[in-house]
Amino acid sequence: MLFFHVKSAGEVRTLLERPVPVLAEESVSLFAAAGRVLARDVVAPIDLPEFPRTVVDGYAVRAADTFGASASLPAYLNLVGEVAMGQPAAVAVGPGEAVRIATGGMLPAGADAVVMLEYTDVVDRQLIEVLRPVAPGESVVRAGDDIRAGEVIARRGRRLRPQDLGVCAGVGITEVTLFRLPLVAVMPTGDEIVLPEQTPQSGQVRDINTVALCAAIQQAGGQPWPFPIVHDDPDRLRDAVHVALATTDLLLIAGGSSVGTRDWTLEVLLSFPNAELLVHGIAIRPGKPVIVVGMGERVVFGLPGNPVSALIVFEQFVRPYLRRLAGESEGPAATRTVRAVLAESYGSDPGKEDYVRVRLSRGNDGRWAAHPVLGKSTLISTMVEADGIVVVPENVEGLEAGEVVDVRLF
Amino acid sequence: MLFFHVKSAGEVRTLLERPVPVLAEESVSLFAAAGRVLARDVVAPIDLPEFPRTVVDGYAVRAADTFGASASLPAYLNLVGEVAMGQPAAVAVGPGEAVRIATGGMLPAGADAVVMLEYTDVVDRQLIEVLRPVAPGESVVRAGDDIRAGEVIARRGRRLRPQDLGVCAGVGITEVTLFRLPLVAVMPTGDEIVLPEQTPQSGQVRDINTVALCAAIQQAGGQPWPFPIVHDDPDRLRDAVHVALATTDLLLIAGGSSVGTRDWTLEVLLSFPNAELLVHGIAIRPGKPVIVVGMGERVVFGLPGNPVSALIVFEQFVRPYLRRLAGESEGPAATRTVRAVLAESYGSDPGKEDYVRVRLSRGNDGRWAAHPVLGKSTLISTMVEADGIVVVPENVEGLEAGEVVDVRLF
Repeated sequence: MLFFHVKSAGEVRTLLERPVPVLAEESVSLFAAAGRVLARDVVAPIDLPEFPRTVVDGYAVRAADTFGASASLPAYLNLVGEVAMGQPAAVAVGPGEAVRIATGGMLPAGADAVVMLEYTDVVDRQLIEVLRPVAPGESVVRAGDDIRAGEVIARRGRRLRPQDLGVCAGVGITEVTLFRLPLVAVMPTGDEIVLPEQTPQSGQVRDINTVALCAAIQQAGGQPWPFPIVHDDPDRLRDAVHVALATTDLLLIAGGSSVGTRDWTLEVLLSFPNAELLVHGIAIRPGKPVIVVGMGERVVFGLPGNPVSALIVFEQFVRPYLRRLAGESEGPAATRTVRAVLAESYGSDPGKEDYVRVRLSRGNDGRWAAHPVLGKSTLISTMVEADGIVVVPENVEGLEAGEVVDVRLF
Repeated sequence: MLFFHVKSAGEVRTLLERPVPVLAEESVSLFAAAGRVLARDVVAPIDLPEFPRTVVDGYAVRAADTFGASASLPAYLNLVGEVAMGQPAAVAVGPGEAVRIATGGMLPAGADAVVMLEYTDVVDRQLIEVLRPVAPGESVVRAGDDIRAGEVIARRGRRLRPQDLGVCAGVGITEVTLFRLPLVAVMPTGDEIVLPEQTPQSGQVRDINTVALCAAIQQAGGQPWPFPIVHDDPDRLRDAVHVALATTDLLLIAGGSSVGTRDWTLEVLLSFPNAELLVHGIAIRPGKPVIVVGMGERVVFGLPGNPVSALIVFEQFVRPYLRRLAGESEGPAATRTVRAVLAESYGSDPGKEDYVRVRLSRGNDGRWAAHPVLGKSTLISTMVEADGIVVVPENVEGLEAGEVVDVRLF
């Protein structure tokens, strides 16, 4: 029998920073690219804007003509025309002249600023009053002010946000080169597991992990691939792992990672060529029985069979790895967090990183209160009742009521 | 010409809390339900677990037989069998007896607790030593401890998370009744706008808003429906709005919400029966020119044509509305936030809610530093450079360098 060589959560995070396989590229329409990861830098082929534009409704003028203007001593300018939207500015602005222009309109030749409508008065069809001076360049965006031709507008490794896609559209790029989605196999194991559709016999339970992990993978930007249930038989497990390694980018085995009598996972994984035991047990609560095996440039996770532990280990260790596997570069952690006041004290075993499930309620002062969810930590209902998790570091013995904590939302 | 009756951000948020249309229901497989919203409560048809199980590897015992046991004075128990995974526990535990059991195994009749393997020693094939006492119920989950038959396991209005789906699978529910996705029309307007695929003529610009808003809608849990560009012609706009109202659940018109010479949006919207002007201008920066028109139980948003403003107004006002339209009930705000130290002071006009774009960098102390992105606020490049937004409330004049701020990540 193999024994646990338990590592700290920090040691495991460091181990998982190993290089990941580089996924193939694919060209995708902007409309299908939201939330996907760029495989190649996007370079602007043109300036944005391509011509000087105004950002207000008003009058294009020569700024010098407005110097010294005030409500009591307005500048009088001759209105010589109007810029039509979507048309080249046909009229030039000479000294003492103004041209009517709407937001986004092309600045006419001769003009170097725009006076907002609010700071003007119309005298008649050919004359306006300007009540405030404008500086040269005021309310004007020059060609290339936003983006310059040749500039990298989004880098390889960026997970594309609405504004990134918008900029691509703005410079005429309608397809982007992305990393294909990482395929993640989920392999449920255990003689006691049956499909959710089946009626379990006495001693059997329905498979919770596959659907839950597939949802978590999807939310983390992977393409889940659920495998059939593998019963506790080393040959069948070896065959299934072989298929998963040949067809997917990452394998999560659920169950079979503890030291129980029938847990073959570790033995089977280590029987593969290039297999390298990276982790066998993590000092966390819940979730201790975790296996990570390197297989060349890939890794296989053996997650606890308990669904609470499996989901927490996924969030803490698999998700950051999957993020890198998807091609995403380092950046601000994409965790959804709210700050809350801990409603009750919580004691924790030192020596383990502890994931406290909390329910949130809105306090009288408008702040969130975090209530630790009591009850046996192995029950999936604790995860359903909870809104998120508070991480208690391994060197901390607990949290005091009234402490401000960061709650990582599910 | 219609004038702005500018409302505060808070007033607009309150106005948008009006009832939303209730979307139709559809039945969906668990594997397609992640992130979707429940339309009906899910009630557990059975207990979970259905039988008493152990949560550790060890020996099923009668707790009373272990009372007083210690390493120096162990309790000796006769090993009378083993529980096979996925099988009913065939052997009963009598006084002075123990049965080997693995995590998840069914507790045999007669036993009321499980001693962990670590606290036992094997004497021979028929005798074990127990080195610590266990209490009745220890390391055992009884039938119904996790979920009771008849219990509501997830309520109407919940956006389904991995654990919610897992619990459904665990109790044998493989399809759930969801609200269909809200269809959101995006209608770009303006004589100056051309498709991203087209080469703009002088004075024309490519449409940035449609692809950016469609991505934002998708991320917010809606089904985007991009409409063709509508030029500045009230009849064509009226026709397009008519189609959108007949076919979608929410209409976002991009452009045409300011008081420019050719902005027909408000006039056209108010020409519909039941139209009710809710908002015409919000005291925010950027994004002031926003129209919200009620149409019976629906609303139409007129967003600023400037893409920066359009995206910020979407995040601040449309997204929370869309969340409710999707059927989601109130809960912790689903914003992804990180706490950061403001790297530079930022001055803000009082009287407006101000959305400061910030770039994040990791400081020497491991904390995030938030750097306000300088430059003209109308440039989309400021949104691309930024990682998120800091909201400066309308009654605050600015932020001091060194202040701790919440950054809402894009």
